[in-house]
Amino acid sequence: MKSKLNRHKVIFKPSNKEIYTEDNETLLELARLLDLKIDSACGGMGSCGKCVVNIRGKGKVLACQYHPDSDLVVELPIRESLGKGKFAFSKFLQDIKQIEPFTKKIYLELEPPTLQDNEDDLSRLKRFLKEKQGIDAHISFKVLRKLPAVLRKSNWKVTVTVASGAKNEIIEVEPGKVEQNFGLAIDIGTTTVAVALVDLLTGKVIDSETDYNKQIPLGEDVLSRINYAQNGGLEELNKKVIETINPLILTILQRTGFDKREVSSAVVAGNTVMTHLFLKLDPEYIRIEPYIPIANHLPSISASDVGLQMDDYAKIHCVPGVSSYVGGDVVADIIASGMNKKQKLCLLIDLGTNGEIVLGNKDWMLSCSCSAGPAFEGIGIEKGMRAVDGAIESLTISDTKIKYKLIGGETAKGICGSGMIDLLAELLKEKIIDRAGEFNSENELVKVEAGTKKFVITKDVWVNDSDVKNIIRTKAAIFAGCRTLLASVDKTFEDVDEIFIAGGLGNYLDVEKAVQIGLLPDVSRKKFKFIGNGALAGAHAILLSKEKRDESINISKKMAYLELSTENKFMDEFTSALFIPHTNLDLFPSVRKD
Amino acid sequence: MKSKLNRHKVIFKPSNKEIYTEDNETLLELARLLDLKIDSACGGMGSCGKCVVNIRGKGKVLACQYHPDSDLVVELPIRESLGKGKFAFSKFLQDIKQIEPFTKKIYLELEPPTLQDNEDDLSRLKRFLKEKQGIDAHISFKVLRKLPAVLRKSNWKVTVTVASGAKNEIIEVEPGKVEQNFGLAIDIGTTTVAVALVDLLTGKVIDSETDYNKQIPLGEDVLSRINYAQNGGLEELNKKVIETINPLILTILQRTGFDKREVSSAVVAGNTVMTHLFLKLDPEYIRIEPYIPIANHLPSISASDVGLQMDDYAKIHCVPGVSSYVGGDVVADIIASGMNKKQKLCLLIDLGTNGEIVLGNKDWMLSCSCSAGPAFEGIGIEKGMRAVDGAIESLTISDTKIKYKLIGGETAKGICGSGMIDLLAELLKEKIIDRAGEFNSENELVKVEAGTKKFVITKDVWVNDSDVKNIIRTKAAIFAGCRTLLASVDKTFEDVDEIFIAGGLGNYLDVEKAVQIGLLPDVSRKKFKFIGNGALAGAHAILLSKEKRDESINISKKMAYLELSTENKFMDEFTSALFIPHTNLDLFPSVRKD
Repeated sequence: MKSKLNRHKVIFKPSNKEIYTEDNETLLELARLLDLKIDSACGGMGSCGKCVVNIRGKGKVLACQYHPDSDLVVELPIRESLGKGKFAFSKFLQDIKQIEPFTKKIYLELEPPTLQDNEDDLSRLKRFLKEKQGIDAHISFKVLRKLPAVLRKSNWKVTVTVASGAKNEIIEVEPGKVEQNFGLAIDIGTTTVAVALVDLLTGKVIDSETDYNKQIPLGEDVLSRINYAQNGGLEELNKKVIETINPLILTILQRTGFDKREVSSAVVAGNTVMTHLFLKLDPEYIRIEPYIPIANHLPSISASDVGLQMDDYAKIHCVPGVSSYVGGDVVADIIASGMNKKQKLCLLIDLGTNGEIVLGNKDWMLSCSCSAGPAFEGIGIEKGMRAVDGAIESLTISDTKIKYKLIGGETAKGICGSGMIDLLAELLKEKIIDRAGEFNSENELVKVEAGTKKFVITKDVWVNDSDVKNIIRTKAAIFAGCRTLLASVDKTFEDVDEIFIAGGLGNYLDVEKAVQIGLLPDVSRKKFKFIGNGALAGAHAILLSKEKRDESINISKKMAYLELSTENKFMDEFTSALFIPHTNLDLFPSVRKD
Repeated sequence: MKSKLNRHKVIFKPSNKEIYTEDNETLLELARLLDLKIDSACGGMGSCGKCVVNIRGKGKVLACQYHPDSDLVVELPIRESLGKGKFAFSKFLQDIKQIEPFTKKIYLELEPPTLQDNEDDLSRLKRFLKEKQGIDAHISFKVLRKLPAVLRKSNWKVTVTVASGAKNEIIEVEPGKVEQNFGLAIDIGTTTVAVALVDLLTGKVIDSETDYNKQIPLGEDVLSRINYAQNGGLEELNKKVIETINPLILTILQRTGFDKREVSSAVVAGNTVMTHLFLKLDPEYIRIEPYIPIANHLPSISASDVGLQMDDYAKIHCVPGVSSYVGGDVVADIIASGMNKKQKLCLLIDLGTNGEIVLGNKDWMLSCSCSAGPAFEGIGIEKGMRAVDGAIESLTISDTKIKYKLIGGETAKGICGSGMIDLLAELLKEKIIDRAGEFNSENELVKVEAGTKKFVITKDVWVNDSDVKNIIRTKAAIFAGCRTLLASVDKTFEDVDEIFIAGGLGNYLDVEKAVQIGLLPDVSRKKFKFIGNGALAGAHAILLSKEKRDESINISKKMAYLELSTENKFMDEFTSALFIPHTNLDLFPSVRKD
């Protein structure tokens, strides 16, 4: 056994995990022994520069090259993957004047009781919370049971966690001063689920993960999910979505080294059906005229009520929805866009499975859902995939040369939404498909196999003719939805000042190509703003800011809804949009020029 | 099989249980087949007259003599055992201007949704509750899950159960119009536990039951119970009190024929330690200086949180307490006495195990606890028992003849608190004991067995010399407590205008004899009012009336507390009171005259 004298203690922040050196390990090796992830691309050769960490009092070093020669405190970089190059996160964080998270940790130093000042423990705690912080709060019963021991063990210095709501609630009391406090922003999409871990002190996203919703095999769209629930499948659908979210949370926690007991709240944005299934509420009446949800504004619940991997006491708040077909995800999109505070007329398009569209500004809002389908999220496309490592996110074809860019990784595994938009535009430009989406089988890049035509990008990635038709249907539904919504209030695209595009279909969207395929209207390109996963960004904002929570309620109360399924105009518009870019080329003057 | 044509359907109210006659049964026999209890003492001979029931449209008959010859609705007498001859129940029911129970059932006829009026189910329910009843309420998550089915099954006509509180809560929704609504008043004494079933529509007590607290074997007073809890016994103590209450509830429900799902709330009055143990809150710091309870004002909880035999959704409210040694039971006593609304100076004495005493009026209140012990509840007395059937409740001795009265039943099984007071006074009067409580062994009624002296009442019931000493200690503690409390504010018994005596020690208390033994002060007998089980009566009032709930909070905030254990005066007074009636006979002029 080595003498402890030659060993050095290394504490990794922010997780506070610690380890003693045994055999002159590098910081990278020590971190891996603790299951802490540090980026590294060169295999520890000291060449990629990705493993930079900060040693307190010494400065930055490459973790793979540094061998501790004394006790150290090492700060690992906090990952802000969602923040990278995205409009939404940087944008709305500026807009939040004060971080007032849904759950707040408050340190209190109480005066101990005496014979003269012999108030009961709970009253004393409430009095100090009121006097020092101006907060009136009631307490949950579970916390009450542990209160006296925690107060005395900590010599009357405690940290309380307060959940805000119609009435504030003390959901936890911990000994001493606890500063770390985390929350989750969760976007439950019909097809894709995204989770972000948020530092509730700084407001920053620390890490995030996405995955396909495990409900997909039980039904690809919300109507088929309702059907499945009606046939006795509610329990199973609920289980599937919880089993989608929990591994995402656990992956993030493991990667960042935080403990689930440090996660005190979550804000969930989902469409109305997803929210019902998440809470195991029967969605049956959503699909039957007059299309009634159980509730658009849901009571806050505890993590233990739904079985999320957070502490049992943690609180979950669902972003309020508007109606059966416009849910909390759209309200969150609007929060992320900020259109609810604008004077100008705005259009918001969510390129998700339900294709929700909102028109309006700070005074009024009108929404619809055009059931676009999950093509942009990679479902129903043979080699489609989510916007993660291995996905082709952009692509050009010039003559017979294909150039593409991957989101990450080294080998193309598939193609994500933004890549498919590029691809469609490029195929048309190169006349590999015609305006109806039919492959030109004489083109040398087109292969025909067993009656199916394919355009091959790599040995593993291609699109076939039914993929192309699927994308055309999706873009047609969205364009037709926008036109119908605008027409219902006698507006055209020209009247709109800003157009927000939301969706997790890639890191960016090539607006020019999206116009060329007829997904987006042919208006000044300056009007477009891509806000990424707006539902997740909005949930993040609502988690952090009381003002945004209030805004979300106002939006949900203010918004009107147009039912497209009863509009003949929508079907006409849809049919006309089944060409690239459109049957009526007058709508796309810049494309016609080409 | 008999033809159904010759059978008659009999419905018993208020339980709505029904049965068909098979073989010319009497109403008494039919009721027993349904487990409905009808009083009967003569074995169905038609002679005792106790089994009178009312047949709707026909009038009163003896159930044991009546054979149904047509379909009938039979009304069983509602037992109001607590109301019988008791001051408290009749008194405060007059005082309650409006019955506003802790949980209220409200019938609502909603307008069904349409495409134009497509509000979600919860918002619709809340809107109608607000519009029709002016009530804002949030909803519990469990109710939300069943809401859509109940609304539609009942054609949008539903009954909601609303629990009042800082925020009103919808705790249940039932199809159609449901009127029956019951609550429980529960008094958790250190020695005796009492439960009353209350009709929340009329306010009347339907039935009640009492039993010894099953915690007694784990410690006879609150300090020994705290001790037991500290040594790992909290769980067990909690279990024991729940196992005391539940059989009382079930007995009442079985006897009255109601279902536990019809019981929507309970108000619990207990001293601070009993309340802690009921809620499984650690009472440790109550007995350690500076004597701090976890909470005097407790959050409402659900029946399922503590495992009471009510519906899971039912709400439980604990009467707020004042301090470690003055709990919700005393606040309930005060409510029952009405002293908190009087201008006159009042004294309230609770003859329970802790012997709480309150002095004051509507402007101020001062309380103390004199640890009287459980003698008046029959514990520590060889043949002592609670005030139930078989107990001697009053007694006279003249020459060598003993006359006694039983609460009920035919054979004396023991002696209850009021009987013991009578006995002590009679023993002194007949010079069978002296002023120090020593038996005169020359008296022919005194038996000596194995060194123990006994006064024998029947072959099964007697008192021994240690019983007598025990009662003297108990009465001495109470008298000394009163004197110390009065002296602390420079008052005497003469300054007091009304004296309320609370306790479950019998149906009435012979004030004259209570003065003769020195339990009560020798002042005008008109000043005394016996309020019976004041804690139970107060819980009943708080269950029924918002005004009383508000009063209980005001009392708990207003009341001051005098700690007797640190007062030398109390020990001096106690020693002086260990004679019958007292060492200082100047305090008992009417006794001295004798």
